[in-house]
Amino acid sequence: MLSQRCVDLGTAPSVIRELFEYGKLRAKEVGADKVFDFSIGNPSVPPPHEVQETLARLLTTVDPLTLHGYTSAQGDLAVREQLAASLSKRFGHEYTASQLYLTVGAAAALCCVFHALTVPGDEYILFAPYFPEYKVFIEGAGARVNILPPQYPDFQIDLNALEAAVNEHTKAVLINSPNNPSGAVYTPETLNALGKLLEDKSRQYGHPIYLISDEPYRELTYDSVTTPWTPDFYRDTIVCYSYSKSLSLPGERIGYVLVGRSVTDSETVYAAVAGAGRTLGYVNAPSLFQRVAATCDGLRADVGVYAENRRLLTEELGKLGYDTAHPPQGTFYYFLPTLEPDDVAFCQQAKALDLLLVPGSGFGAPGYARLSFCVPTDRIRGAIPGFHALAQRYGR
Amino acid sequence: MLSQRCVDLGTAPSVIRELFEYGKLRAKEVGADKVFDFSIGNPSVPPPHEVQETLARLLTTVDPLTLHGYTSAQGDLAVREQLAASLSKRFGHEYTASQLYLTVGAAAALCCVFHALTVPGDEYILFAPYFPEYKVFIEGAGARVNILPPQYPDFQIDLNALEAAVNEHTKAVLINSPNNPSGAVYTPETLNALGKLLEDKSRQYGHPIYLISDEPYRELTYDSVTTPWTPDFYRDTIVCYSYSKSLSLPGERIGYVLVGRSVTDSETVYAAVAGAGRTLGYVNAPSLFQRVAATCDGLRADVGVYAENRRLLTEELGKLGYDTAHPPQGTFYYFLPTLEPDDVAFCQQAKALDLLLVPGSGFGAPGYARLSFCVPTDRIRGAIPGFHALAQRYGR
Repeated sequence: MLSQRCVDLGTAPSVIRELFEYGKLRAKEVGADKVFDFSIGNPSVPPPHEVQETLARLLTTVDPLTLHGYTSAQGDLAVREQLAASLSKRFGHEYTASQLYLTVGAAAALCCVFHALTVPGDEYILFAPYFPEYKVFIEGAGARVNILPPQYPDFQIDLNALEAAVNEHTKAVLINSPNNPSGAVYTPETLNALGKLLEDKSRQYGHPIYLISDEPYRELTYDSVTTPWTPDFYRDTIVCYSYSKSLSLPGERIGYVLVGRSVTDSETVYAAVAGAGRTLGYVNAPSLFQRVAATCDGLRADVGVYAENRRLLTEELGKLGYDTAHPPQGTFYYFLPTLEPDDVAFCQQAKALDLLLVPGSGFGAPGYARLSFCVPTDRIRGAIPGFHALAQRYGR
Repeated sequence: MLSQRCVDLGTAPSVIRELFEYGKLRAKEVGADKVFDFSIGNPSVPPPHEVQETLARLLTTVDPLTLHGYTSAQGDLAVREQLAASLSKRFGHEYTASQLYLTVGAAAALCCVFHALTVPGDEYILFAPYFPEYKVFIEGAGARVNILPPQYPDFQIDLNALEAAVNEHTKAVLINSPNNPSGAVYTPETLNALGKLLEDKSRQYGHPIYLISDEPYRELTYDSVTTPWTPDFYRDTIVCYSYSKSLSLPGERIGYVLVGRSVTDSETVYAAVAGAGRTLGYVNAPSLFQRVAATCDGLRADVGVYAENRRLLTEELGKLGYDTAHPPQGTFYYFLPTLEPDDVAFCQQAKALDLLLVPGSGFGAPGYARLSFCVPTDRIRGAIPGFHALAQRYGR
C-alpha cells in the first residue's frame, strides 16, 4: 500500500515530456536536422556573462565553508538584503530582507505558499490557459482548484467569470503573467480591475483573498511591453519568482517568495511560508546560487534570439495562412490557433510532418497549439516548409 | 485563516538555532574567543580539493545551457549512471541509474519517501535519540510517529521494544547510523537482528515494513569503525543520503534516494518517490551539484580535525570527571552524559560558563548533552577550562 496519488503522479505520462522523448528518437531515425522539436521550454540562450563572472569570483574569493554552508532557512541575510535593495530600486517599493524567502525555484515557492495558506475546504482560482503542474501543487496542499475558461483571443482575464466564481472558500487567485502558454502579459487595466474585484470580494467575505503572482517570465517581454509590477495593483499580492528563464538557469533551482508589508498579517503569512518550507524538506535554497541570484537580479539573458524567432514566426506563418494576429507579448511560447477545432488532431498532423507542438487543450485552451521558440533561429527557418505542408493539408 | 501547523512551524523557536543566535550575540559582548559554541552541526573542514577542481572543470568545459539546464526529474541520466557505478563498486551490488532518484539533500529525500509510502493510518517507528525534524517530515506526510526510548549507554536498538511496538499500521522503521546525536554506528549484529525482526513482522502482517536508512554521516567514522551497508541486512531497505557532511556542502542541497531491486515492488516504490517529488515542487536536484556529487561520490573531507577533536575531548573531559567511556564512533557529535539528571539544567550551567551545548532531551534522550565538535581544534582546547569549572560546580 503506497500513496496512490504519488504512484499515479510518478507514472502518469506527461504529454510534453513524451513528445520531447519522441523527438529524440525520431531524430535518430531521420536525422536531427529533419525533426523540429518545439515541445519544451528550456532556455536556448546562455546565461548573461555576469552569471559566469559571478560564479568564477565567488568560487575563487569566498571561503568554501561559507559559500557552500547552510544558510538561514529563509536565505542568507546578506543575500536577502542585496535582493531587497535591488527589487526596491527596480519597482519603487521599500522591500526588506525580512519579506523575502529564498526558494528552490518557482515550483518550491508556489508549493510553500499553497501549503502555508491552505486550510481544509479552501479553493484556488486560476485561468486557462495554465501551467498544468499548478493543479498538482494545489491539490498536494489539500485544496480544490477552480479553472476558469480562457478569454479568447487576447487571454486577458474574464472578470465576469471571476466575479461569478469567487466564493467564501476562495483562498487565492493565481495568475501567471507573462503567461505560459499564451504569451499574454496582463495589462495595467486588467490588473486594476482584478485588484478592485478582489478588494470588494475580500470585504464581502470578511477575509483577504490573496493574489499569487507567479512571474518566472517577468523579464521576457517584446517590443515595448513591460510586465506591470503586480503588488502595485493589489495589496494582498504574494509574488513567486524564479531565475530559471531570466538568467537561463532552470536546473539550478533558485527563486523567491516576496510577502510585502501591505499583505494582511504579512509577518504571519511569511512565517507560514517558512513553516511550509520546513515541513516540505526545503532546508535552504542552494547556497552558491543564492549569491548568484542576488548579484544578477534584474539582468536577463540576451533575448535577441527569442525576439528574432518570434518575428520570423509571425511573418512566415502569417504568409502561410496561420492566424498570427496575436503574437506573444512575453515568454518564449507562441500560442497558435490551430487550423481545425481539434487541437490534438492538428498536433498529430504536425507530428506526422516532424513538427512537434503541444496541444492547447493540455493547458485548458483547446483550439490552440503551443510552440516553444527557445531554439536556435535556424530551427525556425528549417521548420517553415513543414508548416507550409501542414497549412496545405488544411487547404490554405 | 492560514495553515496553523505551518505558522507554528515557522514561528516555533528551535533550541539549537536559538543557542546559535545567542552565541553570536554573546560573542559580541565578551569577545568571540571567550564563547564556545558547540550547538550547530555545520562542517568545519573544507570540501575535498576534488570538489573545487570539479567545479572549476565543469564551469569551464561544459556548455552552460547543459550545465545549468533542466535535468530529468529523477536526475541527469549520465549522473545517475556514474553514481550507480560508484555505489555498485563501493558496496558490491549491481545498482542501476533507474534505482537512483537525486534529491535536494537528505531532508528532501526523506520527505519524498514519507509522502510516497504513506497512506492514512500509517505509523513510522524511530529510535531516540533522533533528529527532531524527522517528526516534522513524517507528520507533514500525514502519518503518526512512534518514538522508542533510547537504549543506554550504547545507543544500539532495543529490539524487545521494537518487537512490541511494530503493529499492522507500521509502514516503516527509520534509522540514522552513524547517529545524530549519539554518534553510535549500528553494528552488523544490530542490523542483522533488525532485519530478521522486520522480515518476521512483514510476513506476520502480510505487507513489507520498510527500513528507511538516513545516512548523511555514512563516511564520517573513527578508529577502525566503518558503517555497514544497510541493504545487505534487509531487502526492503530504502537508502536516503546527502553529500552535506561527507563533502562539506550542506548549503548546496544534494543527495539521493536509492531503491534497490530487492525492495518489494521496487519500480512502483521508485515511481511513488518521483511522484512525491513532483507534488512537493522538487523539479530536479540542483544541476551543477548533481555532476559534482557523481564525480566526488565516495570521497570525504579531511576528517583529521574531527578525529583530533574527538580524541582531545575524550582525553581531557575524562580527566575532569566526565563520563567519556563511549566516545562517538561516527558523526561529529559528542553525546556526553550530563553531571546531573536534568540535562536542561546542566546545559544552563554550561551556558553560564559560555559553553553552548544542546540538551539531549530535545533529541528524546534526557541525561545527555550534544556537543558538536565540527569546530577548529583550538576552540576545543580553549573550552577545557570552562568544562573544568563546570565539573567543579558538580563537585568533581
